[in-house]
Amino acid sequence: MGKKGLLERLDAGEVVIGDGGFVFELEKRGYVKAGPWTPEVCLEHPEVVRGLHREFLRAGSDVMQTFTFYASDDKLCNRGNEAGVKFTCRQVNDAACRLAHEVAAEGDALVAGGISQTPSYLSGLGKKATQAEFKKQVDVFVENKVDFLIAEYFEHVEEMEWAIESLASSGLPVCATMCIGPEGDLHGVSAGQCAVRMARAGAHAVGVNCHFDPFVSLEAVRLMKEALAEAGLKAHLMAQPLAIWTPDTKKQGFIDQPEFPFALEPRIMTRWEIQKYARQAYELGVRYIGGCCMFQAYHIRAVAEELREERGKLPAAHQKHELWGGGLLLHTKPWVRARASREYWSRLSPATGRPYSAALSRPAGWGVTAGHQELLQHKEPTTQHELDAVNDKFKEAEA
Amino acid sequence: MGKKGLLERLDAGEVVIGDGGFVFELEKRGYVKAGPWTPEVCLEHPEVVRGLHREFLRAGSDVMQTFTFYASDDKLCNRGNEAGVKFTCRQVNDAACRLAHEVAAEGDALVAGGISQTPSYLSGLGKKATQAEFKKQVDVFVENKVDFLIAEYFEHVEEMEWAIESLASSGLPVCATMCIGPEGDLHGVSAGQCAVRMARAGAHAVGVNCHFDPFVSLEAVRLMKEALAEAGLKAHLMAQPLAIWTPDTKKQGFIDQPEFPFALEPRIMTRWEIQKYARQAYELGVRYIGGCCMFQAYHIRAVAEELREERGKLPAAHQKHELWGGGLLLHTKPWVRARASREYWSRLSPATGRPYSAALSRPAGWGVTAGHQELLQHKEPTTQHELDAVNDKFKEAEA
Amino acid sequence: MGKKGLLERLDAGEVVIGDGGFVFELEKRGYVKAGPWTPEVCLEHPEVVRGLHREFLRAGSDVMQTFTFYASDDKLCNRGNEAGVKFTCRQVNDAACRLAHEVAAEGDALVAGGISQTPSYLSGLGKKATQAEFKKQVDVFVENKVDFLIAEYFEHVEEMEWAIESLASSGLPVCATMCIGPEGDLHGVSAGQCAVRMARAGAHAVGVNCHFDPFVSLEAVRLMKEALAEAGLKAHLMAQPLAIWTPDTKKQGFIDQPEFPFALEPRIMTRWEIQKYARQAYELGVRYIGGCCMFQAYHIRAVAEELREERGKLPAAHQKHELWGGGLLLHTKPWVRARASREYWSRLSPATGRPYSAALSRPAGWGVTAGHQELLQHKEPTTQHELDAVNDKFKEAEA
Amino acid sequence: MGKKGLLERLDAGEVVIGDGGFVFELEKRGYVKAGPWTPEVCLEHPEVVRGLHREFLRAGSDVMQTFTFYASDDKLCNRGNEAGVKFTCRQVNDAACRLAHEVAAEGDALVAGGISQTPSYLSGLGKKATQAEFKKQVDVFVENKVDFLIAEYFEHVEEMEWAIESLASSGLPVCATMCIGPEGDLHGVSAGQCAVRMARAGAHAVGVNCHFDPFVSLEAVRLMKEALAEAGLKAHLMAQPLAIWTPDTKKQGFIDQPEFPFALEPRIMTRWEIQKYARQAYELGVRYIGGCCMFQAYHIRAVAEELREERGKLPAAHQKHELWGGGLLLHTKPWVRARASREYWSRLSPATGRPYSAALSRPAGWGVTAGHQELLQHKEPTTQHELDAVNDKFKEAEA
Repeated sequence: MGKKGLLERLDAGEVVIGDGGFVFELEKRGYVKAGPWTPEVCLEHPEVVRGLHREFLRAGSDVMQTFTFYASDDKLCNRGNEAGVKFTCRQVNDAACRLAHEVAAEGDALVAGGISQTPSYLSGLGKKATQAEFKKQVDVFVENKVDFLIAEYFEHVEEMEWAIESLASSGLPVCATMCIGPEGDLHGVSAGQCAVRMARAGAHAVGVNCHFDPFVSLEAVRLMKEALAEAGLKAHLMAQPLAIWTPDTKKQGFIDQPEFPFALEPRIMTRWEIQKYARQAYELGVRYIGGCCMFQAYHIRAVAEELREERGKLPAAHQKHELWGGGLLLHTKPWVRARASREYWSRLSPATGRPYSAALSRPAGWGVTAGHQELLQHKEPTTQHELDAVNDKFKEAEA
Repeated sequence: MGKKGLLERLDAGEVVIGDGGFVFELEKRGYVKAGPWTPEVCLEHPEVVRGLHREFLRAGSDVMQTFTFYASDDKLCNRGNEAGVKFTCRQVNDAACRLAHEVAAEGDALVAGGISQTPSYLSGLGKKATQAEFKKQVDVFVENKVDFLIAEYFEHVEEMEWAIESLASSGLPVCATMCIGPEGDLHGVSAGQCAVRMARAGAHAVGVNCHFDPFVSLEAVRLMKEALAEAGLKAHLMAQPLAIWTPDTKKQGFIDQPEFPFALEPRIMTRWEIQKYARQAYELGVRYIGGCCMFQAYHIRAVAEELREERGKLPAAHQKHELWGGGLLLHTKPWVRARASREYWSRLSPATGRPYSAALSRPAGWGVTAGHQELLQHKEPTTQHELDAVNDKFKEAEA
Repeated sequence: MGKKGLLERLDAGEVVIGDGGFVFELEKRGYVKAGPWTPEVCLEHPEVVRGLHREFLRAGSDVMQTFTFYASDDKLCNRGNEAGVKFTCRQVNDAACRLAHEVAAEGDALVAGGISQTPSYLSGLGKKATQAEFKKQVDVFVENKVDFLIAEYFEHVEEMEWAIESLASSGLPVCATMCIGPEGDLHGVSAGQCAVRMARAGAHAVGVNCHFDPFVSLEAVRLMKEALAEAGLKAHLMAQPLAIWTPDTKKQGFIDQPEFPFALEPRIMTRWEIQKYARQAYELGVRYIGGCCMFQAYHIRAVAEELREERGKLPAAHQKHELWGGGLLLHTKPWVRARASREYWSRLSPATGRPYSAALSRPAGWGVTAGHQELLQHKEPTTQHELDAVNDKFKEAEA
Repeated sequence: MGKKGLLERLDAGEVVIGDGGFVFELEKRGYVKAGPWTPEVCLEHPEVVRGLHREFLRAGSDVMQTFTFYASDDKLCNRGNEAGVKFTCRQVNDAACRLAHEVAAEGDALVAGGISQTPSYLSGLGKKATQAEFKKQVDVFVENKVDFLIAEYFEHVEEMEWAIESLASSGLPVCATMCIGPEGDLHGVSAGQCAVRMARAGAHAVGVNCHFDPFVSLEAVRLMKEALAEAGLKAHLMAQPLAIWTPDTKKQGFIDQPEFPFALEPRIMTRWEIQKYARQAYELGVRYIGGCCMFQAYHIRAVAEELREERGKLPAAHQKHELWGGGLLLHTKPWVRARASREYWSRLSPATGRPYSAALSRPAGWGVTAGHQELLQHKEPTTQHELDAVNDKFKEAEA
């Protein structure tokens, strides 16, 4: 295989474009359930996952990441999730690998196996139990000969260290992104210190994914970069943020915003906003640039278009999108044709169309972290009694 | 075939759920070009069109509408569009019919052949030339045995009458929706009068599609209903609006908003807003309820969920979505589980996350209509000279 | 006396600039109580009223309107208001006349005696009782030799007709402005028909004051103008709107907005917005142009500055304000000096500084009108029992 | 004199309520010119200054601060200001002292002489020249037997130290407030360090005034408090912020916001927002609590009402304002009477009425500081040539 590996690319200073988000997009398409967010669609409707991989490939993604988010056995079974009744972790991960490989082969893309945080850790079951969950996924990734591994969406650097240890045992390159912002992890470890610990644990590339908008996320990566430099560590930088605006998040990110997850639409970013992110990420030294929830194919294409000179190429889907809205020259109305320019789109501050909405909201969130009583998970569905306790706590907070 | 026809369903008072929008969604996925907006993807990537049909079917759509928007020969060739070089109207329409049939057969859905307004009319070429374009599409629809026909996205009722005449010659049921709001068509014909003329021209169902948000659109349909009643005419009512907020449009709709088409994201509606639309549409007496641009599968599912009692069923994709966010009971964080209720989502006014954006913008648009010099179309690409003339006109308006 | 009378001025096509609002401004200064809004300050702190008259005179007002809003005996005593215990209608009106005369004499201003709607009418006490209240005020105005009379702030044209009849008996010129918008009066009489009835009842100038923003108010005046023309009536046009934005009001105006009266600050208009109002009012043919609540001296000065050419003069307070921010040329910071231009201020859309606020709110209001049980007034303070009934009604509406 | 002195009050832990803003309020009333902002109204219209003092006294102010802002000779003559042609520093300051004394004698209020930053310092003329300007004011204050002195509105702590030195020579108590936020002074000195230097220079009370909203200002005061504690210094804390929202300011505050000074209306705070400020200031340990620009009498009354228990009294103007809108019980409409409660007003997030406005704007400002070429002042009016240079710089920044 002539395919260049991840580290070869990054070491050479090349930009590696990640993919976008699967769970939110497939939820909208009707194949993933919000709440558990588990990826059994890989088995239920493989053609749908294949189709989404292909959208990202065409848009410029250099990586086909297996859709194995939350695909550990403990998560597939959490709180009455039926996914775990029907499918095992092994089955889901195996199917996901095959789908990613299939589409990657249609282009020059790498395949990355991905793992994420676990209910086991959240419930305080400890290192051994948590790593046992990771190992089941890693085994499948190795069998399926993925090109590299990603540990992503970790709120606590301690669990992330355990995850990196599990991934590193494979001998494959390891990327590690936490879902944190500039305030650091949920146990109070600073963003910079998280980066240092991830690098020391063996990650080749470190950064953030999910939970925050691109600009808040880059601020966290900047803190990571500084801390790595100060510690004399070398690691590639990586960013896979949300494609929504979250200027009003606190430590826990968009999960705690009142609009999560069913009323985030007004926050969705335009392609022009994403181009700014791509440029700023590049200028900060981030070379693995992708997206997470709400990041659709056209957002990835915007990254590829913004960095076309650095990469020396444009993606397949560019055939259906000229730079800075150039395709509008074919529109029938003259005043719309007049919008076919960089000047127009880069200056426009889009109206929201929502006069009854405020710009910002106040996040909820109780500051509880892994191991806290209120975060203990179980296989049984949530009871009314549990819900009442939550609502009582909200009422107390208001009073 | 045991499948009940469109008129059987509507005459029986049943709700018929249309599908959502293809051009904007496939533009985002990388398969349609904004500007020309033509559907050659039916030939270039048929599996993608099939996939989108299937999303709508799973979401509850009773109709698979052929993706033949702007698929007339004069439009495929307009202003340098390469689609017309590669494919003929016949080829595109034929492929689209096959794709719609394929997916419709996976459920109980009807297949509808669709036509839309033409550059020929806009350029003032007259009835004969315009109907010649329509006829080429209708011939293919008849050969492919579609269940009924839709004339949609017409800005001028005069062209719509010609279209209905062309469709009616097939003997199939005809639906007719104009892309107008309460202010009526671009030649100054009131919304009510448009409905009367559509019904008199032979349409079995009349209403509006595209250009305006659901609530503005329903106001136009209300005016149509009143005018039909006053004229003693009977026609079923139909609505397929945008899934974005457009409280700030004028006569020409979202096309003229500065954000069109690449910065409309903040206006995208939530599923809960769409549920309100479905309810209001039903209460107004609209029985063909669907969507247009930005209307994704989860929006269609919201229509189906809102009208589950009236329809006596829930769609396949409901398996991945419980009513009013019920799936959140499986979330790991207690304060997110507390959002699993109708009370929570129906009361929430979502923040926009955009403190540098205004709520409303002022639409452009010059009040020119079919036949006007500035709207003449041609096969050649737009020249710089033409663009300069437009920009001069903008400068004059500002001065 | 060389002073030209009101009708002389208006008949000659001259612009007559009214004054601004007293109740809100003096509430902020600590001399008027929100709720009753009665003007006993004329007796309690005459120098304060004199000072505010003078601000308006200096700003360009051609009229010193007696501060006799809600100064009828039935209002001074309503719902436990102590004003009526201390002072009679006669005392308040008499003091107000003297203060207006005093300041008017410092310039070329006219003195206008003003009356407004009464609890007697609202409580359904009938024409005789209501006119008895008006008569007490008119008698004082006549004794004090005011130049003309104004009936303002009437929600029902029926009471307005009774008021005009009372004022006209004095032989003085009569102006009449209702606090209505384009939807007309609270009994369902259209804005146009209100104008016709006011003119027929004997008003020399008709229009609107209070309750709506300048642009909504001018729309109401436009309807009045058309109806007068259609009825073949001649009357001068008059506008004294709020200096706050109310794009979200319904029939009853700002009273029903949730922010009334203690959270209206974000809606306050800038001087530049008021200049646009002055221009539009003039272009519509309104010649008596003033303001109501929230209209401060600098807003009146903006009217005078905008119409400086039509009036051939600038007001005294212009000495402290150059056109279009010219005084900023004396600022110490260069980038602030650069704002000293019409181009800068006429284009600026001011940020609100309020990211947690929506742009619009939904007005309350129950559609009740004069004579309705819920609007009956009494001398005794509001009881808890009455309040509970109101809150029950709100709860019902929410459920 | 039975009047307790400032330090007696503060040392005893009493709350001292300052006054509100004079320049913006008198600009609106037509007596002060925006740009130069100089207080020659003390001589031109003394009754107006007296009236405004009285509003604050009635609202609860314990201090009548002489209206001597920008009343140094170099400022009265700056850039063509005519004030300096007509009046000397001595005349203006003398008149201001008499007016403050007059009104203070109507109550229990103290008189404070105030000085502010000078063009001399800004132009780099050095300590001697700058202190010469201060001395002329201090001499008048001493002659007029004011109770204490305030150095306020300094952007550079170096000039502030010179000012405190000048004031301290009088032997009177000295308060010192800089117009800075949490980012510190314009020369890069941190807020905490500014406090330390002010205390060491001899100020008895230190804090901030102007330039930022109450909550941003309190954050700066919190930093000051911490730094004073760390340095082992004792000084009373003081806050006199704007009564407008400035969440979007940077280091230089509201001066640099595009809306300054003629389009700040939407940012004006409600009385309820000011009550929150008063409570937070008190809880932080601030005991001299007042306001600056846009702080009107009703805002000061809100401070006095919020702290009524701590102070054991309510101000005179409370007679016209019941707590939490209680006066609305006298309103004629039942749904407005229902708003007479703390619950209602403390929860309301007021709509802005401005759907074409964004929530935030981006401040201008060039980072230039005292002594910088671009900030050199002169007596002659600003020339077109100077203005062109500014505009060129703006164009460069945009390009």
